[in-house]
Amino acid sequence: MYWGYRTQVCTPKKECVVAIVDVSDELVKPGEIGIFKDVAKDLNLKDGDKTEIMHMDRPASISYIKRKLDGETLKPDEVQLIVKEIMEGKLSEIETSAWISAAYIRGFSDEEIIALTHATVNSGDKLELGKKGICDKHCVGGVVGNRTTMLIVPMIACTDLYIPKTSSRSITSPSGTADTFEVLTDVEIEIEEMRKIVLKAHGAIVWGGGMNLAPVDDRLIKIRHPLSLDPEGMLLASILGKKKCVGAENVIIDIPVGRGAKIPYMEKAQQLGDHFIKIGKSIGMNIEVLITDGAEPVGNGVGPALECRDVLQVLEGKGPNDLRHKSIFMTGKLLELAGKCNVGKGYDVASDLIRNGKANKKFREIVGLQGGNPNVKISDLPIGQYTYDVKTEREGQIYHIDNKMISKIARIAGAPRDDGAGVYVHRIRGDRVVKGDLLFTIYAESETKLSFAIKALEDLEPIEFRKMLLGSMS
Amino acid sequence: MYWGYRTQVCTPKKECVVAIVDVSDELVKPGEIGIFKDVAKDLNLKDGDKTEIMHMDRPASISYIKRKLDGETLKPDEVQLIVKEIMEGKLSEIETSAWISAAYIRGFSDEEIIALTHATVNSGDKLELGKKGICDKHCVGGVVGNRTTMLIVPMIACTDLYIPKTSSRSITSPSGTADTFEVLTDVEIEIEEMRKIVLKAHGAIVWGGGMNLAPVDDRLIKIRHPLSLDPEGMLLASILGKKKCVGAENVIIDIPVGRGAKIPYMEKAQQLGDHFIKIGKSIGMNIEVLITDGAEPVGNGVGPALECRDVLQVLEGKGPNDLRHKSIFMTGKLLELAGKCNVGKGYDVASDLIRNGKANKKFREIVGLQGGNPNVKISDLPIGQYTYDVKTEREGQIYHIDNKMISKIARIAGAPRDDGAGVYVHRIRGDRVVKGDLLFTIYAESETKLSFAIKALEDLEPIEFRKMLLGSMS
Repeated sequence: MYWGYRTQVCTPKKECVVAIVDVSDELVKPGEIGIFKDVAKDLNLKDGDKTEIMHMDRPASISYIKRKLDGETLKPDEVQLIVKEIMEGKLSEIETSAWISAAYIRGFSDEEIIALTHATVNSGDKLELGKKGICDKHCVGGVVGNRTTMLIVPMIACTDLYIPKTSSRSITSPSGTADTFEVLTDVEIEIEEMRKIVLKAHGAIVWGGGMNLAPVDDRLIKIRHPLSLDPEGMLLASILGKKKCVGAENVIIDIPVGRGAKIPYMEKAQQLGDHFIKIGKSIGMNIEVLITDGAEPVGNGVGPALECRDVLQVLEGKGPNDLRHKSIFMTGKLLELAGKCNVGKGYDVASDLIRNGKANKKFREIVGLQGGNPNVKISDLPIGQYTYDVKTEREGQIYHIDNKMISKIARIAGAPRDDGAGVYVHRIRGDRVVKGDLLFTIYAESETKLSFAIKALEDLEPIEFRKMLLGSMS
Repeated sequence: MYWGYRTQVCTPKKECVVAIVDVSDELVKPGEIGIFKDVAKDLNLKDGDKTEIMHMDRPASISYIKRKLDGETLKPDEVQLIVKEIMEGKLSEIETSAWISAAYIRGFSDEEIIALTHATVNSGDKLELGKKGICDKHCVGGVVGNRTTMLIVPMIACTDLYIPKTSSRSITSPSGTADTFEVLTDVEIEIEEMRKIVLKAHGAIVWGGGMNLAPVDDRLIKIRHPLSLDPEGMLLASILGKKKCVGAENVIIDIPVGRGAKIPYMEKAQQLGDHFIKIGKSIGMNIEVLITDGAEPVGNGVGPALECRDVLQVLEGKGPNDLRHKSIFMTGKLLELAGKCNVGKGYDVASDLIRNGKANKKFREIVGLQGGNPNVKISDLPIGQYTYDVKTEREGQIYHIDNKMISKIARIAGAPRDDGAGVYVHRIRGDRVVKGDLLFTIYAESETKLSFAIKALEDLEPIEFRKMLLGSMS
């Protein structure tokens, strides 16, 4: 029994978990074993309990990871075994990190991606609605604001389609859809409860991380996150696997492109889009990819409550034009994809759902079913009380509003942890301004955080003016 | 403060360690933080103590690892920062595993290897003898038996050269030099004590893992081990860094080549050898590489006590020819390399040290200085009492003795944990045998382990006879 060996630790009742051996001269006496708290908890063991330690063979998938490092393409059952052994706790973070690094450098074949998608789906629970016409949407991300989900879901749910949406919380952005919707209602909902809500209202917006849907993806993200490793194949399997788990048949994928976006070039977006469609087809999913302008924020508010305000305004027929237009456009495409209207007519059908108030009513029904106040008013929103206005110092035309810098300021001000914190952008690209015009306002829930955000402005220029000279050489 | 964030946890006295944040709704109440035991121990914290939590920037080396994954070559100071941040605990196993995977796939430039070697040396203590003529040897491994170190060290120590040898314990083999020498004496010796012994006896054999020499290497090996990732650059930096730590000027590197050895082909061995010489030169080290026959075991005994028996016999002018010849040959080369005799004369000089008993006397002096019995006799060795003889079932010529299979049997029989366990191989390649001749004997310290080893023979054919037909196709 040496350091690093895999063993099974079993109770007398033969309940077993996999554990990695550590060796200590100090913590345990000969004949004793120490057990880490998580293992003790899993097995319900107390001090003094007897356990059985059984030798475990080296997991088979280790040799597959080695072959992947060596540049080989793995067979579907090999990919599936890697996922299975990750879920069983047989592979450590070291080994999983090596697999992800190999995938990042070597890439995945289509067959590997499809196998990983199936394995992702099968790693946890599924939402079984027993209905036809299940829709979904996904945004590849990188654009601040951009709360289209909170508008597309109620619009689609007004029809006889279903949209059981699982959303994420922020990892590095000022707010995820789950964080923003949580200002209004509960998003941590069990799968059975979600099923009931969707069957009743035709839609829901739930935090995906709180359910056991595609749990292997959470484990992979934990390893991918520190180095921001997003091998395309893992991205595809993660996104499409989760859609498949809720039974989605028709899916719109939004790929924002442009300066500062996750996907900087059109060619890369097209290549990724092709890949989405191809992998989707292989798992029986009807996909339309929309490549959108991702160079600037969508909507004016950035941060949970500020974004809610934009959404509630759009539902009332007002609010930021870009957010309204993009949400209606995407809803229309989804309606066309699902065969609910003729191609070219989707935009008008979706527009009507905003205009006639049906989407607003549906949104509030969903908020109520998930445990929130269906009659919430914009004035109820907890917008941060400490504010700072940033004004222009000169006349000019706005050339670029930087997603990453706006994001950074909003995060320093407290978003997404503080619901009311964030940034409100008063201008959009192309606006002409004169000296003294308001550019954006920072909101915070504490004076200290506001002062940190103001200080950050010294190094950041989130709103850029058009310039003649872009650089000089000598 | 989110999951996965790096923070500094500090005591009121401003002693700080780096820790990674985990989030729990159950284990801690609002306003409390839980601290893992290793952190509490490092900071000497008790329940109820106040701590300060400080945000830590993302370690700079994370971006270097990302660039390495992307195929870039890092600058020397970037490699050194990675090592520094590993030592400071700023990089997690996930990130370190990604770096190693990237190094495995992308390879290291010579400049990266040299930088890593320097960083390895500077990661811990150094043995400062204050003498000229410090020698060392290293074997790349993969050959069972092969206890040349225990013979080369006393021979070199008979001259006015110094050989402060650090050796390893077995990780996957039936015994490491440290395990074998430990049958006779203590090998866990502090650096200051080692210094005294070497100044007195001109040699010592100490377990390297028990000292703080090149500690970053231990951390890297922990990550490399599960997937057996041995990127050549890390292998070179590890080996040469450790030699540099003891001040070695003249170093013999043994690269065993052949069927079943770590390095299977001559071309690969030559390439690795060139690399050793080149990197050695850049750090002021005089290296000679010997490419040796590694297809079969060297010596007859496999396992700690059985290997000791071979060594003691060679010191008395008897014992296995191959072990004696290889040890004398390598010692001769080292004497020539260090300028102690003319080229071509080293073998004779080393031979004399065995013949005249000086090496035996020196060996026993070192055993005594390290705390063992200098008058140990072969009959004192704790050879396992449970034995099983494997005999030929037919007449023929021995074509191959498989290192890996012999190793496996010896390990199943209990080596290296049980000193007396292992295998004694009675034949060498080329021997002609008749039905009933003894091939090898298995030794164990318990009947159960012996029976496991016997059972393993069902699937293993460690000794192969010459065959006419190697395969057929139809």
